[in-house]
Amino acid sequence: MAMHQLLSKIESAADLKTMSNAELTQLGAEIRDVLCNLLSTRTAHFASNLGVVELCLALHSVFDFRRDRLIWDTGHQIYPHKLITGRYHEFSTIRTKGGLMGYPNPQESEYDLFMTGHAGSSVSTVLGLKSGDDLMGQSDRKSVAVIGDGAFPSGIVFEALNNAGGLKKDLLVVLNDNKMSICPRVGGVASYLDRLRTTPFYAGLKSEVIKALNRVPVLGDPVERFLAQLKEGVKAGLHGGMLFEDLGFRYLGPIDGHNLPLLKKYLQMVKDLKGPILLHVVTEKGHGFQPAAADPVFFHTPPAFVQENGCAIPKKSSGGVPAYTQIVSESIGEMMAKDSRVVVLTAAMCQGNKLEKVRDEFPDRFFDTGICESHAVAFAGGQAKAGLRPIVDIYSTFLQRSYDQIFQEVSLQNLPVIFTLDRAGLTGPDGPTHHGTYDIAYMRVFPNMVVMAPGDQYDVRPMLNLSLQLNQPSSLRYPKANTETIPGDRAPVELGKAETIRSGRDGVILCLGTLLGDCVRAADVLAREGLDIGVVNARFVKPIDREMVERAIRESTFVITVEEGCLMGGFGSAVLETACDLGLDTSRIRRIGLPDSFVEHGERHEVLADLGLDTAGIARACREMAERCSVVPHHDGGGTATI
Amino acid sequence: MAMHQLLSKIESAADLKTMSNAELTQLGAEIRDVLCNLLSTRTAHFASNLGVVELCLALHSVFDFRRDRLIWDTGHQIYPHKLITGRYHEFSTIRTKGGLMGYPNPQESEYDLFMTGHAGSSVSTVLGLKSGDDLMGQSDRKSVAVIGDGAFPSGIVFEALNNAGGLKKDLLVVLNDNKMSICPRVGGVASYLDRLRTTPFYAGLKSEVIKALNRVPVLGDPVERFLAQLKEGVKAGLHGGMLFEDLGFRYLGPIDGHNLPLLKKYLQMVKDLKGPILLHVVTEKGHGFQPAAADPVFFHTPPAFVQENGCAIPKKSSGGVPAYTQIVSESIGEMMAKDSRVVVLTAAMCQGNKLEKVRDEFPDRFFDTGICESHAVAFAGGQAKAGLRPIVDIYSTFLQRSYDQIFQEVSLQNLPVIFTLDRAGLTGPDGPTHHGTYDIAYMRVFPNMVVMAPGDQYDVRPMLNLSLQLNQPSSLRYPKANTETIPGDRAPVELGKAETIRSGRDGVILCLGTLLGDCVRAADVLAREGLDIGVVNARFVKPIDREMVERAIRESTFVITVEEGCLMGGFGSAVLETACDLGLDTSRIRRIGLPDSFVEHGERHEVLADLGLDTAGIARACREMAERCSVVPHHDGGGTATI
Repeated sequence: MAMHQLLSKIESAADLKTMSNAELTQLGAEIRDVLCNLLSTRTAHFASNLGVVELCLALHSVFDFRRDRLIWDTGHQIYPHKLITGRYHEFSTIRTKGGLMGYPNPQESEYDLFMTGHAGSSVSTVLGLKSGDDLMGQSDRKSVAVIGDGAFPSGIVFEALNNAGGLKKDLLVVLNDNKMSICPRVGGVASYLDRLRTTPFYAGLKSEVIKALNRVPVLGDPVERFLAQLKEGVKAGLHGGMLFEDLGFRYLGPIDGHNLPLLKKYLQMVKDLKGPILLHVVTEKGHGFQPAAADPVFFHTPPAFVQENGCAIPKKSSGGVPAYTQIVSESIGEMMAKDSRVVVLTAAMCQGNKLEKVRDEFPDRFFDTGICESHAVAFAGGQAKAGLRPIVDIYSTFLQRSYDQIFQEVSLQNLPVIFTLDRAGLTGPDGPTHHGTYDIAYMRVFPNMVVMAPGDQYDVRPMLNLSLQLNQPSSLRYPKANTETIPGDRAPVELGKAETIRSGRDGVILCLGTLLGDCVRAADVLAREGLDIGVVNARFVKPIDREMVERAIRESTFVITVEEGCLMGGFGSAVLETACDLGLDTSRIRRIGLPDSFVEHGERHEVLADLGLDTAGIARACREMAERCSVVPHHDGGGTATI
Repeated sequence: MAMHQLLSKIESAADLKTMSNAELTQLGAEIRDVLCNLLSTRTAHFASNLGVVELCLALHSVFDFRRDRLIWDTGHQIYPHKLITGRYHEFSTIRTKGGLMGYPNPQESEYDLFMTGHAGSSVSTVLGLKSGDDLMGQSDRKSVAVIGDGAFPSGIVFEALNNAGGLKKDLLVVLNDNKMSICPRVGGVASYLDRLRTTPFYAGLKSEVIKALNRVPVLGDPVERFLAQLKEGVKAGLHGGMLFEDLGFRYLGPIDGHNLPLLKKYLQMVKDLKGPILLHVVTEKGHGFQPAAADPVFFHTPPAFVQENGCAIPKKSSGGVPAYTQIVSESIGEMMAKDSRVVVLTAAMCQGNKLEKVRDEFPDRFFDTGICESHAVAFAGGQAKAGLRPIVDIYSTFLQRSYDQIFQEVSLQNLPVIFTLDRAGLTGPDGPTHHGTYDIAYMRVFPNMVVMAPGDQYDVRPMLNLSLQLNQPSSLRYPKANTETIPGDRAPVELGKAETIRSGRDGVILCLGTLLGDCVRAADVLAREGLDIGVVNARFVKPIDREMVERAIRESTFVITVEEGCLMGGFGSAVLETACDLGLDTSRIRRIGLPDSFVEHGERHEVLADLGLDTAGIARACREMAERCSVVPHHDGGGTATI
């Protein structure tokens, strides 16, 4: 097995076409072995990949995805697909800097069509691909989306099913039902799928009954029309999947997603059917590795572990410094304990947001909407209107899906909803779909919104407590990173007030957010070089501290703004706007942050360093500005992330 | 009738409680009379309001919405509600500056809970209200959403139904099924609702059969389990509305939405039922005024007309200058005629976008997704990947719902989707929910995206043609306004190049978009006062013309940026960022545009004037800068919209 006899020889998924079911089964075992070995080296998506091994092999056996179209919704279950599409030999690089991406990546392979990461859009894109192929005269190309039941309630899926049902395009949607999103799924669709799964699929018996019913004549008489209706009712009940049938899809299933011959048989059967088809496949997250199947939540992206006798022994973790997520979730628990108006909402990220404890402690005040960010925000708006103080705890990148609801249901109504934006800034190994790049820019445009970012662990609790005092919406952003605490006497958090950490005559660094520690260390380094650099913990983008901006520009030779967010329209731009409104000169301001290009994956500290967003990079920017300001100004400031 | 005997005396909707059905019917007639009279004075939402008269009266008769919760989804059908909640006497001011808003407005009445305008969020907000009321110990308060079948396929509705089905809250969703969004509805849900409407509602007969079926015992044996399944199937078929039942709602209907006693009976019946209920009400858009019922698309927001013998004679329109929407739709038609890769997508705004002609001419290449903006963009991404050149034609404010798909499915994949953002800037009488305020800020943050705005009619075609040449996404924004054409020799449109309309030594106005005409006129006025002011047609926010920015700052005493978009993160900020990156002084730049507050409704020219965004306001800003720059700089620049 260690040799991966079959897998190591596969050059392209086309090789699967000639393999027997026995060989495919062996191939599946080899893939599972690779996945288990990978997890002994690093954190990666695991249980979801174990669950789709047979489905992936069956799809590639039946279709030819060099020509046919395949989208893996959400994309983190792409590993088996990568292993059989020419990437086995570099697979050990996955999720490392310069290595394979942990999501589909068109730059890696013609088999990857879209870089995905946000859930639910696959049905829309395959419908678009099909529509395009048809108009381009290539209607022989098949289109397939594989979407998990966790992503399924996402509104865009329903929008796409509705449109597909109307357009009647030939389309295959494989519903990969493992009863989970990352956490156990919730809501009406979940219960519905549970009912479908418990409905025995008596195919033979059913079709006989349906045939018999079809012989009942339909006439105009009310009683006969009633009989006809009864007949349709019986057919509906036999079918199952009426929710999908009602939208114009043909529903098939549920079938066992680990039975490779059965999967192939069904895929072969539906391949040439006309119109939109939904094939309901039941899989087990973590299938084939007992510890993962038993605890798929933990094994979604487990820490590196060692396998011993079929058990997974976690490797020793890095130590005792809590992550920002941890501090925020603890603070939320404290707020809920002391203020009964406080409720918390997550969009299927209970685990990622570390909300298990508050869920168990306050089950009535914990709301998991599933992967439904748009709804979550409008729902919170309603709760706030009724007098609650909802905390919407969603990753920065996923809250993008609520842009319109933040506008209409929260900001326009001026309701005191509190947004905690986790994973703001670079998320590291996940890459461009998951970096929280745009939230400063998108949050600050909305009237009434307070936009904050803690500079360190100290700031988190007072900022959240401030949010709770406000009669307006507010937001707090923080990265996926361990906390640090800036030493020294600290100023209390006050609305719209920055905090001076140290003053400096030569230059001042205005830092928004948790790169503050690097700014302080950079100032330390520069002090040893004879440069006197101040550091300000900006704390607020909105309302921005105008006095702080004015003082910084007037009293220091140069100003550097630092943020872990996009430079376009971000914190640095807010500083420029403020300076412009005050009629101040901005020619000695430099902004550093995330560039106008997609930032690839890698460890967060590696990627930050590449972008000049670490201690060394910030010090370098200061030196460059010092040089520029003491000699004739030149306009070609270096660094990769300045423009 | 002209006296509105009943209506004029109603002080609050509570007065309806004591009215007989005959009186309520007369009240309905009086409301229709008011609506018809209104339309002889101005453009307003019409057919949708005629359609909900009875539903509105029935709801207020049965519930008490000072305490119970009512959300009118989308909100433009709010007129009858306004008329019976204390606003009859000021009703003639609706949609005029300083008058009543054409949408729900909490500042007008305690009966209006949320300012709505974007479709689909009502189910989420009433679920939030119910959840809040329950936790606040006020579970006696009922929650009702009224949502049209046009809004129904919007993804957030499905997300909300899914969550409501899971939470099992007492909730009433009234599906107001008039077979329309603004245009005829499309998609799988539409066909499904059509089938429900044709299903006779044999309530008595059905319940007998269901009772009989319930007496069939359910046992463990496979055949008996099959029988049980058969039984469920029969029940399902009898019920109708399984799509909703599957999601955890109880479905009732369809019932006649113009039969007031029947509506009251049903509302009374469902009022105290437990769990989420969906009541399917069939109404006719335009009911009670024959011309509107016959052509509800035209009569959605018709121009002012005169009634003669039950006919509607449109008043003479303002003349021959085409609107930007018209020019864009003509250009789209031309592009489709000469390039078969070009397709166009609208989200239920075929009429608003003036796409009827291209729809009829190119039916295979015209896609109406319904009110499903998120899907529309992801769908276009798929089409572009397959080789098409999709044009996504959506209003600026509604495209907010696609923020995440613009990010993931278009910008991240670098696909050549073309966005035409109609209604960018102030829309006038619709007010804050409809102004296109944020698009410059939200579009320009995305890598690969080209962001343009025509300065006048001349720019539109070359910009769209440029879009078609690009192998990357692009966008074009334009207002709901008549075109104008700046006279003189014009520079061809080139990617990332601004156009100098006139040069000026004292100051220069950098204008993005169609306020260009006002800028030129302001420069004319100022020239007569001895001020030499240049005007630049910026054309591109991204890529911005760096040379233009540098030249403007270096060669003129002051610079004014002008845009019909939010000042935070908008075009002016892009100019500041560019200047900062070039190390230039920005202390003599002033930005004018939309302020950091919600702009109320009124005629577009009135609101623009209030904000200093007309010829006079732009001239005033120039004078102020001239004064500031010729004397010692001071920092208290006036104007309402500068900060």
